Amino acid sequence: MAEPTGKVVHYTQVPAQVFGGEAPGVTIRWVIDEENDGAPNYALRLVEVEPDGHTPNHAHPFEHENFVVEGKGRVLIGDHWHDVGPGDVIFVPPDIQHTYVNAGQSPFKFLCGIPASRLMPQR
Amino acid sequence: MAEPTGKVVHYTQVPAQVFGGEAPGVTIRWVIDEENDGAPNYALRLVEVEPDGHTPNHAHPFEHENFVVEGKGRVLIGDHWHDVGPGDVIFVPPDIQHTYVNAGQSPFKFLCGIPASRLMPQR
Repeated sequence: MAEPTGKVVHYTQVPAQVFGGEAPGVTIRWVIDEENDGAPNYALRLVEVEPDGHTPNHAHPFEHENFVVEGKGRVLIGDHWHDVGPGDVIFVPPDIQHTYVNAGQSPFKFLCGIPASRLMPQR
Repeated sequence: MAEPTGKVVHYTQVPAQVFGGEAPGVTIRWVIDEENDGAPNYALRLVEVEPDGHTPNHAHPFEHENFVVEGKGRVLIGDHWHDVGPGDVIFVPPDIQHTYVNAGQSPFKFLCGIPASRLMPQR
């Protein structure tokens, strides 16, 4: 882990990584992380989902804390779908099935925080 | 701590608490927290600073992870001032002096994440 160093950066200056096959049309920017910033407790990522794209429908033993920045989406949390837009906050607890779907004609962008690796439950 | 429960809420639906005397014109909304949501690792807050307002100029042994949602601000991190606006990401490491100042004519709004109480260093 890097020594923690203060920074200010626009999210668009952080490279967007293609998520991969199970997440068509999805990129992720690690805007604050352990490796580069020494963030001690959690990483902040900005996820962009193109129209018709979606993240994996999956569950894992750690939580997500989200804030919608742009666009229209639908989010599955457990058995319930929710319509979301800018300014909406989403909390997905550990071990709950979830997916994020673009429901509009423009990119759906949201922040997604996850715990640092030392805080990830090992199961 | 509450059992973790999934939720979707617009940030404006979460009550804005007045910060107090050392932070004129500042309110804070705890949009995801331990007490109400069972967030295991960090709390997400939305801070609003009115024109001419600012947060305390202080330091503490835990970090901030910020994302600017609206408005114009100036942020002190250690010895350096930074101009910020929507889409800017700010990382303030533990023990670094910092303050957030509204530099515009409209509310300056940003997300601010802090670790859960069990992860707060005791010094």
